[in-house]
This record gives sequence, structure tokens and C-alpha cells, in this order.
Amino acid sequence: MSLASPVAPRLQPNGLRLLAALEAMAEVGAQPDGSICRRGFSPEDRQGRELLGSWLLQAGLTARVDSAGNLIARREGSEPHLPALVTGSHLDTVPTGGRYDGALGVIAGLEVLRCLQDCEHQLRHPLELVVFADEESTMVGCKGMTGAASADPDAYTTSNGESIERNLAHLGGDWAHLAEARRSDGEIAAFLELHVEQGGVLEQRQHTIGVVEGVVGQRRFTIRVQGQANHAGTTPMHDRQDALVAASQVVLAVQQLAAGHPGQPVATVGRLDVWPNAANVVPGEVVLSVDLRDLSSAVLNALERGLRQQLQRIEASSGCRLVIEPQFEVQPTPADPTVMATIARCAADLGYSASPLPSRASHDAQEMGRRWPMGMIFVPSHRGLSHSAAEFTSLEQCLAGTSVLLASLLQLDRALDPGRDP
Amino acid sequence: MSLASPVAPRLQPNGLRLLAALEAMAEVGAQPDGSICRRGFSPEDRQGRELLGSWLLQAGLTARVDSAGNLIARREGSEPHLPALVTGSHLDTVPTGGRYDGALGVIAGLEVLRCLQDCEHQLRHPLELVVFADEESTMVGCKGMTGAASADPDAYTTSNGESIERNLAHLGGDWAHLAEARRSDGEIAAFLELHVEQGGVLEQRQHTIGVVEGVVGQRRFTIRVQGQANHAGTTPMHDRQDALVAASQVVLAVQQLAAGHPGQPVATVGRLDVWPNAANVVPGEVVLSVDLRDLSSAVLNALERGLRQQLQRIEASSGCRLVIEPQFEVQPTPADPTVMATIARCAADLGYSASPLPSRASHDAQEMGRRWPMGMIFVPSHRGLSHSAAEFTSLEQCLAGTSVLLASLLQLDRALDPGRDP
Repeated sequence: MSLASPVAPRLQPNGLRLLAALEAMAEVGAQPDGSICRRGFSPEDRQGRELLGSWLLQAGLTARVDSAGNLIARREGSEPHLPALVTGSHLDTVPTGGRYDGALGVIAGLEVLRCLQDCEHQLRHPLELVVFADEESTMVGCKGMTGAASADPDAYTTSNGESIERNLAHLGGDWAHLAEARRSDGEIAAFLELHVEQGGVLEQRQHTIGVVEGVVGQRRFTIRVQGQANHAGTTPMHDRQDALVAASQVVLAVQQLAAGHPGQPVATVGRLDVWPNAANVVPGEVVLSVDLRDLSSAVLNALERGLRQQLQRIEASSGCRLVIEPQFEVQPTPADPTVMATIARCAADLGYSASPLPSRASHDAQEMGRRWPMGMIFVPSHRGLSHSAAEFTSLEQCLAGTSVLLASLLQLDRALDPGRDP
Repeated sequence: MSLASPVAPRLQPNGLRLLAALEAMAEVGAQPDGSICRRGFSPEDRQGRELLGSWLLQAGLTARVDSAGNLIARREGSEPHLPALVTGSHLDTVPTGGRYDGALGVIAGLEVLRCLQDCEHQLRHPLELVVFADEESTMVGCKGMTGAASADPDAYTTSNGESIERNLAHLGGDWAHLAEARRSDGEIAAFLELHVEQGGVLEQRQHTIGVVEGVVGQRRFTIRVQGQANHAGTTPMHDRQDALVAASQVVLAVQQLAAGHPGQPVATVGRLDVWPNAANVVPGEVVLSVDLRDLSSAVLNALERGLRQQLQRIEASSGCRLVIEPQFEVQPTPADPTVMATIARCAADLGYSASPLPSRASHDAQEMGRRWPMGMIFVPSHRGLSHSAAEFTSLEQCLAGTSVLLASLLQLDRALDPGRDP
């Protein structure tokens, strides 16, 4: 690690301590196949939070839980009127999760706090570490903090099937006072999240640090293709309204829309169900999903327009009826240019190869970035794998990301000051 | 009906009697939605056979059940050494069957017998009416009669899940003596089956009678497309091995193979299953069925060769692995030229518009035609629908088919004589 950094030599993350914390957290919810199951609101989720709480306590810090179930540790700064610098991520996982997705961002934030405590280094701004609630399912934590959480309990599909009210209570949250989790504009100066890439871009570029340009927006559609089920033997080819033939044209059109578009949008048909789905019956109906993602709303608009044109073309040529139903839309969240520039400068100062890239997966940062200046630091995911036991980021890479996180927070602490251009 | 027919004026089917029998049979297994459920070996199947048996008895005829569960009525001819003319079809239905598929051929055969009995008309050949067992599932009846039935009880997948042994016993058959159902070459002179088309060709041509050229052969394959499941957000388009994109190319290639081939082969992907089938995951594996049918083995060979070439092309361009597994093969069964010519001539003599066409569905005739000269007479299916409550053939059309069946049997009875050119 370069010593020509804005971090004082002794103000450096401790690699062994970081590794030990990652390994201890990976024991919580460990499965026989090497994966980790720490579903949001589960006993394992609570156990992970208790472990983190014990480490914070050892470091001389305490944490509270807000009504949205977020666990929040706070270290006060020297200028009490300043808004907080906030970092964090999540400890909950998918059913067969890995040891880095979410956990790395939380444990790196802990390591930053430990370094500051060890060195008794005083920041100007308060510094908060947040463990957001249930990132992998409802995102009730980050949405509660930004004020975007739905007030309708039926709007939450939880992974354990229990109500959101009961689930929040499991974590020490409080559904009845959910609105109180919302932070005001002036309470937060910036939000930084360190996360594994969950894709293969950095590894292919052989870069250690990804400076995230933003979290892509997403548009999800359901398309129903209505043809005419018929006998696969007795129906001549020219008399068919074969819903699967038309649906296959849709699948290829979706693929070509994204592959042929400038930039790097992605478009996926991930789900496709055929009715009646019998080898001797011409398919009568197909229902499929279309998922479009890009950093730019203009690109998403162009992709959606292209999709609708292709559907009209296929409807006209196939004799099938094609109906498109929007399912949901997530607006892109651009990263804050100042925060991005800070991350890039710190990575360069520390001697790490770095490049910009979009985040194509959802993160707590996507919600936080709608309210406050946001930045994300990515570190490589081996072979792009995530949400599996095979998820892997080396200790060197984890430590590099933590160093950039610490340096960026220190830099922002110096640079950010309301009323003055940073 | 034209009187310039080879049928003596008084030797004509009775339309009202035919209609009454069709309606009475449609009551057996009638469902609230208008469909008919008379599954092979079911109580309704037995009830239908008992009803037929009572009509035969009234006509002064008796029936036996062979070991394969076929109900066989026989009327002796004037030349005892001659082989039998045989007609028949089936009384069992799919779960939501119609009133014509199978039943029409049986009841038309009954009407032929009734006419001959009424007029005390003596044929040279014995005439048999056969109700074949379980046409819609195991085809144990026709295969038992031709000697093609498997001796392995596990080879039979019955619709009620009971063993073939028990099921045959329900109908008065006898698994232990199944081989005895096989008829020798010299016992049968020709087999004729009247059936509804189950397709829309005759209706489109506005023809009343279809002279079946044969029952198409069929090749069924399973194709496994193995790609790489991946995150639909984080995996760039050029890094994907999307099994559904490759499978969609297969679907379109299959459609184009048949649509672009001379003649009228059909090719269908009816079943397609995606794994993991989630909107936010690039599909990792797809399994699909391919069904090819044509009258000509040479055409089936060409289609299969084309399919394998397309799979190689798609494998090379998609990065997915494509594996083809043959499931089963049914050889085409051509109709006998003499029997076809007889049907065509009788239809013309009776003043019915008629044209040749293949049978693209399976029938008892396809098995019988492998051993003995076979012909099928088709009458139109309204809108090509079958296997549903909407199956419909008008009384006029049913009567026309019955008249052609009677005339053809009379003509064959005169013309066929071993040792002499018919």
C-alpha cells in the first residue's frame, strides 16, 4: 500500500482484523455447502447484528436501532452542527448467499470506526455506520431512512412470509413509527457504500477499484403472447398461431435491442412459461418477463420504445396477440460527481488501479442516493459470481476497498462544508 | 344422396338412427362443460361398450372381447374361406373429449351392420366391427391385434395409473394371454376406419370426404440447452451464455425447417421449460421438445438432418451446449392404394366432394395398416377443433362418411378376392 496517501501512516485499516471479522461474520448462518443463509429478520440476521454490536462496544461505540430496523452506530465529530458522513451496507443475505455481498461494506465501515477510535482521530463531521434492514427483499431499511417506504403493510413481500410489522419487531424496529426513521435533508452530508461488484468487469479490466457511476434504473414488464392452442399433428404450419414461435421472436428482439444499443444496457427475458406446455400441442399462450437496465433514463426510454415497436411487428406477422404490462420501474440513481471524484483520487493516491463502471444490481445506496450525495466503491468479484458459496474477493482486494473507503471519508470530511464549495 | 351409387337404394344408412346412437353414446361420460370423459378402462368406457353391445344384440349380432380388450362383432359372409373385412375405431376419449373422435367410426360401423342386417344383404367376406381398447393412451387394443403390443407391463402408461393387467381385466381382456389377440395375416382382407379429421383442411377446401393417404410418421426429441445462469443486472450482454436466447433460435429454426420444406411436414416445439425461470436471472438451462411429422420417411430424415445442422450452428454461435436426445419414433403408415381408390370412387359415385390428405394424428388404423391393406375416410371437423367440447361434425357430414364407408365395404367385398387382381 502506498504511503503517499492522504491517510496518515498509522491511520490504516488492519488487514488481519478485517479478515477476522469477515470470517467470524461468515460463521453466522453458515450452511454445509459453504453458502450463508442469513435472511432478513431471521434469527441469524439478529445474531449477525449482535456480533457487530459486540465489536462496536469493544471499540467504545454504541448503536441504536431506528423504527425501520436499521442498526446505526454514530461517532460524533468536532463540529456538532455539521451533517453526518454515513457509510454502511447490509448483513442479510439471499438463501444461498456468499460472505462478501453486504457484509464487506458493514465490516469495512466497522474497520474505519476502529481505526479512528484507535488513533483517537477526530473528524469534523459525525460519522455513522448503518446496517440497513432486509436489503435482499423489501429494502425497508434504506427506504425507511429516505422516507420512500410504503405505509401499506401488504406492499411488503417478506422472505419468511411473516408480516412486515412482526418482522420489524424482530430487529427492534417499530412499524407504528416507521415514518420516524426518515432523516431530514440536513442530517446527512454524503453516503458511501463499499460493495463487491457482483459482476466480472473489474476482473476483466484487472482493476482493483471500481468507481461506481450510479445504480442503473430498471424497467420490468410482463408480456403475454396469445395464440391458439392446437393439435401439433393436424394443424398445418401456415394455419398456426403458435404463441411460442412469437415469444421466441420477442426473446431474440429483446437480446438484440440491448446488444445493438450504444453503451452497455442489459435486457433479459429470464422467465418464460408456456401453456399448455405439452409436446404434442401447438402452444396457445406464453407469458414472459422483460427486464431492462441502464444508468440513463434516455437509454431506458429508447429500449422501451424499441421493445414496443418490435412487439407490434411480431404481432402483425405472427397472428398472435401481444400484450405488454409494466410491472415496476426503478429510476436510475447517479452517483454524486464530487464523491466519485473523491473516490477516484483516493484510489489513485493509494496506488490502486481504478475505473468507473455502473452498478447493475440494486443496493441500499440506490435509495440513499435519491436524497443525499452518494458514492459506491466496488471491489472485484472472482469470475463475477455472487449470491452463491463461490462468491470470492481476496483479502488484498477487501483491504484495498476499505483503505479507499477510509481515505474517501477523511477527504470528504475535510472538503465538505455547507456554504463553501467543496 | 345420389342414387347412381353402387349401394342399392334400400341399402342406405339411416340418418336418424345414426344421430340417435351418436347422441346416446355422448351421454356416457358427459361432463357439465359439454365435454365427454370416457377414459380407456374407466367405468364410462365399459358403459359405452355395454350400450354398443345392447344395440348389436338388438340387430341380431353378438360380440366377443379378445385378450387385448378389443370388442369384436362379426357377421359371417357367404364364402367362409375369405378373410374378414374389418372396420372400427374406439370409444375411449381424452379427459375433455368430444362426441365424434372415435365414437363416429364405431357407430358408423354399427349403422353399416344394421343396414346389412335390415336388408339381409349377404356379403362374400365376413365383416367385423372392432372397438379398439384404449386408443387415446396405450393403444393396447390395436397393437394387441397386430402383434405389436409390448409384453412388458411397465411399458404401458395408463391414464388411471393402474397396471395394464388390471385395466385389461376391467374390459374383459386377459393380459396373461395377450399374444392370442394377434390375428394372422390371412384372417383380415382390409381395414377401414371412418374418423373426424381433427384438422381444418377439409373445411377450408369445402370438401365433404377426405381420402386419407396414410398416417404420418413421427419423431420426437428432447433438446437440452445448457448455458450459464447469471445475474440479469450485472452480466454484460456479450458475456452471457443465455440458454433461452439459444433455445429461441431453436424454436424458430424448427418452425422454419417445416414451413420451408416442400410438401406439408409439420414441426412443433410444444414444451419448453426454463431454469431457474426468474425475471432477474439470465437463464442457465432450457429443456424443450421437438416433434416432427410427415407421411414420408425421406422427408422426416431431411427434417432431422436439418435440425441437427441448426443445433450445431446455434451451439457454435451462442456459446451454449445443445444436446439432442431422441425420445421415440413412429414409422409412417401409407394407406393401401386399392382401398384409397375404392373410397375415392365411392365418394364420387355418391356425389360427395372429396380429396386426398394425410392423417396427422394417430389412429388405430396406423397400427392395422402395418399388417393389412388399410384405408381411412375423414369427414370435416368444424374449425379443425378436436379433443374438446367444441368438436363438431354435422349430421350430414357424419351420414356422408357412413355412406362412403358402407359403399366402400360393399365395393371391396365385390372386388377383393385372393388369387385374383381386385
